[in-house]
Amino acid sequence: MGPHPAVAAIRLAVRRVLHDIITELNTTAGVPAATAADRAPERAAGLPTPPLVLVACSGGADSMALASALAFEAPRLGVRAGGVTVDHGLQNGSDLRAEEVVLRLRDLGLDPVEATAVTVGRGGGPEAAARDARYAALDAAAARHGAAAVLLGHTRDDQAETVLLGLARGSGIRSLSGMAAVSGADGRYRRPFLQVDRQTARKACMVQSLPVWDDPHNADPAYTRSRLRHEGLPALEKALGKGVVEALARTAQLSRDDADALDTWARQAEAGVRDSTGVLECAKLYALPPAVRRRILRRAAIEAGAPAGALFARHIEEVDRLITGWRGQGAINLPGKVVAQRQGGRLVIRQG
Amino acid sequence: MGPHPAVAAIRLAVRRVLHDIITELNTTAGVPAATAADRAPERAAGLPTPPLVLVACSGGADSMALASALAFEAPRLGVRAGGVTVDHGLQNGSDLRAEEVVLRLRDLGLDPVEATAVTVGRGGGPEAAARDARYAALDAAAARHGAAAVLLGHTRDDQAETVLLGLARGSGIRSLSGMAAVSGADGRYRRPFLQVDRQTARKACMVQSLPVWDDPHNADPAYTRSRLRHEGLPALEKALGKGVVEALARTAQLSRDDADALDTWARQAEAGVRDSTGVLECAKLYALPPAVRRRILRRAAIEAGAPAGALFARHIEEVDRLITGWRGQGAINLPGKVVAQRQGGRLVIRQG
Repeated sequence: MGPHPAVAAIRLAVRRVLHDIITELNTTAGVPAATAADRAPERAAGLPTPPLVLVACSGGADSMALASALAFEAPRLGVRAGGVTVDHGLQNGSDLRAEEVVLRLRDLGLDPVEATAVTVGRGGGPEAAARDARYAALDAAAARHGAAAVLLGHTRDDQAETVLLGLARGSGIRSLSGMAAVSGADGRYRRPFLQVDRQTARKACMVQSLPVWDDPHNADPAYTRSRLRHEGLPALEKALGKGVVEALARTAQLSRDDADALDTWARQAEAGVRDSTGVLECAKLYALPPAVRRRILRRAAIEAGAPAGALFARHIEEVDRLITGWRGQGAINLPGKVVAQRQGGRLVIRQG
Repeated sequence: MGPHPAVAAIRLAVRRVLHDIITELNTTAGVPAATAADRAPERAAGLPTPPLVLVACSGGADSMALASALAFEAPRLGVRAGGVTVDHGLQNGSDLRAEEVVLRLRDLGLDPVEATAVTVGRGGGPEAAARDARYAALDAAAARHGAAAVLLGHTRDDQAETVLLGLARGSGIRSLSGMAAVSGADGRYRRPFLQVDRQTARKACMVQSLPVWDDPHNADPAYTRSRLRHEGLPALEKALGKGVVEALARTAQLSRDDADALDTWARQAEAGVRDSTGVLECAKLYALPPAVRRRILRRAAIEAGAPAGALFARHIEEVDRLITGWRGQGAINLPGKVVAQRQGGRLVIRQG
């Protein structure tokens, strides 16, 4: 008898990602990509040293399921598996909690395993500050252990929530593209569970008798994501049907591909709309599709010093009207003291 | 003292659209676009016959507000204003209701005004069937009266709902792009209120003492849109903040521009990925960004006979794997008995 379907699903998701990692390491080591993929299992052991893959684990169901699947799959593929848990120090006893997670990861057979404590700042709100501190700690742990990759337990439900959070910004398809399956420096971070739903992860823990910890923050209505999870998404599902989470996750992937393609186009088109001194020419910008033109304008504003996070769609629309709706407007003030101004047939964007 | 801000807002929205319509008519009549825009007000009267603009009015707050704004603005711009109300025959007494709307539109000074009865079929669900019948009747009324345009009362809130409905399909950014400000044959349909919220339209009716009719369907939880309006969107607003409707409407516009640009790219790239006999070449497809490649595949499947409405993202993903993940797969069956098959370095998509 095979494993429970939920356990099979999480293992398959992890196996695929380990396969990708091994293939990439082999390719880097000089094995041709075509054969590297076919021979991934055997080749992992043939690498100079067996690669180490870490799992970032909070002790919650998603990342405990991930840890269990990594512990199962890694040895079969000649990969070493370790774990890191981050103590955010935001709750009493969080250090004890972290030590408990360490023990559980060791019980799964992971090695090395460590808890790392961080100090959460206040920049960008509580969720962003905790996230920044966490990734800094994970980066450091990966470097310390020479890890080839760090696996993160974000599920399809997390992805759906991220898409809705992006939607609420109303800043276009890039913010609808959610979390990437591969991200970070050198593609260090991998999210094997982006197609796995939370229910499956939870079920996999249950049938493997893995104790899990429910972070009280996840149910705290002070957090936007928590309100979305417990009220927003269920109400949407009630109105639109059960497929909403899957549809949001698919929207993320499609939006990401679309945004990437349009960014490429804008990068390629940019050289062609500048004069010999590098200044943007309005007539040439006018001839481009609006989607491409606005991306070039956004890039130019950021290059001139506008902070990307403070530059909204409405700013770019206003700059765009200097080209498409010219009626002698004055200079447009953008964040970061950047000024956009039409001068004859030229558009000058610079810090003023 | 000027009009109430809500009345000013709906009039401004209508004035802009009338201005666009006149400018386009003048451009068609041979007046250069640059001067046509400046001289729109005077030129409308100078057109061979004063153009007629119809408002489609259900008697609800949105379209009554629209009718009142059209009645106010049209004479000032040398435009004739008329109205049509569609009797869907779905409720007892709907014919009397339609006659009442006719009287109200006449009271506003619109002329011609007519009620037109339709028979709603069953194709595609009750909402789609009613919509199809309505647009057929509006098309016929526009043709009968030689109208230059038909104004529709969809508000920013309707747009937000439409984006969420598209999101639930999970089929990419085209389905996130909501309703167009200009649509239909020759850009006949115009939606002046896509930036106006429902509350403003309602307020404008109130301060102008216009009686409005609340369609009981709008509150019937049997309708997806109604559930979204009364439960889904309010829950999202509670979780994400009051700006959600605006953010969704902005997402619609940005997505539409992005989808248009990518469609253009795909159209242009298509010729370059076919061999001399017109068959798609896998190597050339592989070199394109995924977003562009998948659009070409989708176009090819539709051209081969697959019905657009039945062709989902997962179909195209599967065809795409014939190119990006080739491991000797068999033929892929698509809706409309279309088959996609890799033959050597070629991708053959045809009705089988």
